[in-house]
Amino acid sequence: MTFEQYGNWGRWGADDERGTLNLLTPEAVVAAARCVREGRVVSLAMPIRGATSSPAPTTVPHLRGRPLPQHFMSVDGGDYAAGARAIGAGLRMADDALVVTPHGTTTHMDALCHMWSGDELYNGHPAGRVRSYGAQRCGIDKAGPVVARGVLFDVAGLRGVPHLAAADRIGPDELRACLDAAGTELRPGDVAVVRTGWPLTWQEEGPDGYWAGQPGLSADGGRWLAGHDVGMVAADNAAIGGLNERQLADEGLADDLHMILLWRHGVHLAEMLWLEELAGAGRAEFLFVAAPLRIEGGTASPINPIAVL
Amino acid sequence: MTFEQYGNWGRWGADDERGTLNLLTPEAVVAAARCVREGRVVSLAMPIRGATSSPAPTTVPHLRGRPLPQHFMSVDGGDYAAGARAIGAGLRMADDALVVTPHGTTTHMDALCHMWSGDELYNGHPAGRVRSYGAQRCGIDKAGPVVARGVLFDVAGLRGVPHLAAADRIGPDELRACLDAAGTELRPGDVAVVRTGWPLTWQEEGPDGYWAGQPGLSADGGRWLAGHDVGMVAADNAAIGGLNERQLADEGLADDLHMILLWRHGVHLAEMLWLEELAGAGRAEFLFVAAPLRIEGGTASPINPIAVL
Amino acid sequence: MTFEQYGNWGRWGADDERGTLNLLTPEAVVAAARCVREGRVVSLAMPIRGATSSPAPTTVPHLRGRPLPQHFMSVDGGDYAAGARAIGAGLRMADDALVVTPHGTTTHMDALCHMWSGDELYNGHPAGRVRSYGAQRCGIDKAGPVVARGVLFDVAGLRGVPHLAAADRIGPDELRACLDAAGTELRPGDVAVVRTGWPLTWQEEGPDGYWAGQPGLSADGGRWLAGHDVGMVAADNAAIGGLNERQLADEGLADDLHMILLWRHGVHLAEMLWLEELAGAGRAEFLFVAAPLRIEGGTASPINPIAVL
Amino acid sequence: MTFEQYGNWGRWGADDERGTLNLLTPEAVVAAARCVREGRVVSLAMPIRGATSSPAPTTVPHLRGRPLPQHFMSVDGGDYAAGARAIGAGLRMADDALVVTPHGTTTHMDALCHMWSGDELYNGHPAGRVRSYGAQRCGIDKAGPVVARGVLFDVAGLRGVPHLAAADRIGPDELRACLDAAGTELRPGDVAVVRTGWPLTWQEEGPDGYWAGQPGLSADGGRWLAGHDVGMVAADNAAIGGLNERQLADEGLADDLHMILLWRHGVHLAEMLWLEELAGAGRAEFLFVAAPLRIEGGTASPINPIAVL
Repeated sequence: MTFEQYGNWGRWGADDERGTLNLLTPEAVVAAARCVREGRVVSLAMPIRGATSSPAPTTVPHLRGRPLPQHFMSVDGGDYAAGARAIGAGLRMADDALVVTPHGTTTHMDALCHMWSGDELYNGHPAGRVRSYGAQRCGIDKAGPVVARGVLFDVAGLRGVPHLAAADRIGPDELRACLDAAGTELRPGDVAVVRTGWPLTWQEEGPDGYWAGQPGLSADGGRWLAGHDVGMVAADNAAIGGLNERQLADEGLADDLHMILLWRHGVHLAEMLWLEELAGAGRAEFLFVAAPLRIEGGTASPINPIAVL
Repeated sequence: MTFEQYGNWGRWGADDERGTLNLLTPEAVVAAARCVREGRVVSLAMPIRGATSSPAPTTVPHLRGRPLPQHFMSVDGGDYAAGARAIGAGLRMADDALVVTPHGTTTHMDALCHMWSGDELYNGHPAGRVRSYGAQRCGIDKAGPVVARGVLFDVAGLRGVPHLAAADRIGPDELRACLDAAGTELRPGDVAVVRTGWPLTWQEEGPDGYWAGQPGLSADGGRWLAGHDVGMVAADNAAIGGLNERQLADEGLADDLHMILLWRHGVHLAEMLWLEELAGAGRAEFLFVAAPLRIEGGTASPINPIAVL
Repeated sequence: MTFEQYGNWGRWGADDERGTLNLLTPEAVVAAARCVREGRVVSLAMPIRGATSSPAPTTVPHLRGRPLPQHFMSVDGGDYAAGARAIGAGLRMADDALVVTPHGTTTHMDALCHMWSGDELYNGHPAGRVRSYGAQRCGIDKAGPVVARGVLFDVAGLRGVPHLAAADRIGPDELRACLDAAGTELRPGDVAVVRTGWPLTWQEEGPDGYWAGQPGLSADGGRWLAGHDVGMVAADNAAIGGLNERQLADEGLADDLHMILLWRHGVHLAEMLWLEELAGAGRAEFLFVAAPLRIEGGTASPINPIAVL
Repeated sequence: MTFEQYGNWGRWGADDERGTLNLLTPEAVVAAARCVREGRVVSLAMPIRGATSSPAPTTVPHLRGRPLPQHFMSVDGGDYAAGARAIGAGLRMADDALVVTPHGTTTHMDALCHMWSGDELYNGHPAGRVRSYGAQRCGIDKAGPVVARGVLFDVAGLRGVPHLAAADRIGPDELRACLDAAGTELRPGDVAVVRTGWPLTWQEEGPDGYWAGQPGLSADGGRWLAGHDVGMVAADNAAIGGLNERQLADEGLADDLHMILLWRHGVHLAEMLWLEELAGAGRAEFLFVAAPLRIEGGTASPINPIAVL
């Protein structure tokens, strides 16, 4: 008995809408679980900072002009301090609400419906099924949880810099060098976790530093990962590929990273991760878990991805 | 280098705010990962159905009177069908936003600040620090991801019924019987996953059936779990304990399940899980993972908890 | 110098998008102002009740299944009672946010883009310009404020009942009888304010009484008002026309009240007014003012319409 | 019969919570209506621009760091272009939602509960009644509609400049000079409409120009208006008083404009008006109408204030 009976279109994980997450075979999941050696759990998410009557939300890295998360308390301890009555014999409670636009503002996972060209989504699904009611095809509810072997490509670490420069693009040679330096290899279904260090610019230079452009994968870097049948690419930049100072990708359609990975190859993407703690842990292989919220028809979900070392 | 440097109060995982999640020791995490045998991943979440211009949101189980999730598309395939211009050389995109009040409407995890009595939260933290800006103590951002051994207490299965009755309360004997039937035991740090089957009433009888009350743990059942040092209690009902037809707990303050578990013992709670698929899998032990969104000061987070079998 | 310079499409009040509001000529406005005799101001709006952690929002009449208003305080007096610091030398402030879906939940005014048939909005504007970014044609921002002579059609009063029955439909004869009883007449540009008394059922019988259907104008009643060149029709029911118990209009396309008034004749509509206080005032003519928020591309605006007696 | 019967605390217009709006006597309302001579209606509101997947919202003047309005279409013409089915025999509809934080982002009216010092709001109402559920005292629902004689203080016009400089403060002499230049006087209950021209800086210089500080009333200017028993002060700047480049008022508590007007004298305030069109109309006296939404417990309401010339 599954929940889908309730829904008009909420099929969970139809194979032709799951892209490379189909590579997360039972065998791959078992192998991923075996990567757990130390038992240390590292969160790869930035905080969601939504106190709307303060500048707090603006202190978390985000793309310029995007609506920031808003977090509201509908009842809180202040109300009781001011005399609100307890429930029944003395229960007190706090309750809240969140308004969130995941792309560009949070650590999130893209659905396969997030980007396309022409009239078809990934795998030929009609783009016209992505409507105001949500995406009836390739929504984030179709992805399902990601449980896989994670492999860290610590590009900033390889170069010995805190973070790459805005104009840097990461190609196959550098990706290979990361694997060599770590003494590991990439297997089908792995999650490639790419560290540019770019979120550090927000701390060091403020928003203008972060908005000056962004480093990211080159088109060939993206193709190389797709060619290795990765299950997902997860990066600490905002768009997997690089961005110019207008926060746009410079590549043409054929070379756009979202087109290459998400649209053509059905590779799920996770963006705006926080990889500094993971990078300090000295582990290139780990169990990677990211379970997007089951938002029906969602183009993305905020996530709290984890590495279990 | 951690993200906390950005924040004014966003410490992640201060020990005295993490309650029983401190039981998730490295050893326990390693042991939990060893529960993975088949490599099958089961989501324990209900869908988040937020198409606001249709009755879809009302088809997912929820407590009466709570604001349901709202999901909006800020650009979608319909716009392009109607003539919207592509970005640059032909990129098209879908973008969206979610408004969510987790308690009572979604599969979610409670923060330790969610309920208390008097002027102190769990572990003596001052309730007055839970304000409109969010909870500065015991917020969901303090919990961190849950990676633990999960143990299924399939109470409905034990009784051989699709679901318990609204007035049923689950005590220690029945919890023990579940373990015996499954041939397993409960260890410190385990996540106790309790199945009442109650969400099925929404399908069978509609909202009025679901709102007629709810089965749940008895006070002694809750004490028994706390006494076994569980890391978390996760159930498919809405409040861990039972509810009467006014959707309130009948117990006095000393016996209230949230007071016993969340407030006194610091046991995190996850509610409104969907356990039907897990129950059908025939596995009482598994790797349980739930990674709440890092909502600073949040009283809860919607989650997509998973069982890796 | 107008604000439109800022916008890409925010023209305010293009004549062919304003429908019958074009009848609000300077002469008509001057005449309307002369209706002010007593200087009494009566609000015709229901409250917007959005305290989301309480059942308060469910106590205001609304259509079943619609998302109710949510009102959040982002800082409030409770925070200061709990120890929050004042700003500077002692300033304290309260701040808030509102989430609102106007149709079916609030006293609101419909934009001309709210309903249509085929591929064209009112006056031939292409329906495809109503996209996720908002309505580029016939949005509520195009309407402009309504300042007109208001004429009360107190149908419930005429019949001597607190409210009409759900199946009642109001035709030309009854509308004429209201004018006769009040000793007045209808002039081009007037706002026809139609009282059914239906909101009283919420008080008397609760939601189920309100949801049992709704009285409203008959198709001929709508045509009669359109034929008199009214500037707007404003009613205390939810859809100008009547509704059946499934909250749908029973008329065919040719006879649907929104099609007749909004779509064919460009007559703006205001719905879910609270007319009980006005009805008690004994005045059939007054200055009517409703100024919709300038929501660019909005399909409606919550309003607080007023009668100045 | 009034709507208050529904509510637990929604009294409308209790006299001691209405401040100077009590000056809007029937006589004053009748006199205000007589100001209508030309029959021209001018909106004094900026647009609410909330297309969240575009930079449009950032093109409307707002205070830095505030959450901008978000406007979502829950069904629109694009959906039909992409194949969505019509309702019944052919009805099509557009529906939407608005998320708005009025202060600092929209043309809005402040409630008397918006600012205070110590533990009491205006008129001694306890600040502790302003909680997460909304303001039980002095909320915007207590204000009621404003129907009054409006008097334009066109300070920029008097000086012959497009807009004042950020450091300019407007005192009694200049206010008096505005009246003299217009050949009019200020009467009890009038709405003083103060034009600085500052919103033009957004057009001319962009956000940084607007955020460089703001001109406004001096403390003595505020006292002078309060001394004349104005019913409301409405200005095109963001805070009635001036702001420095950190967007804060420089005055001490005794001289703060919100303290003088809102808190001590109960003078309602409206901020962020668009006065350019009105200034061009050459009329210093007019009928002023602003009807705040009846948001129960609200600290403000977005408004579309109008001048009827």
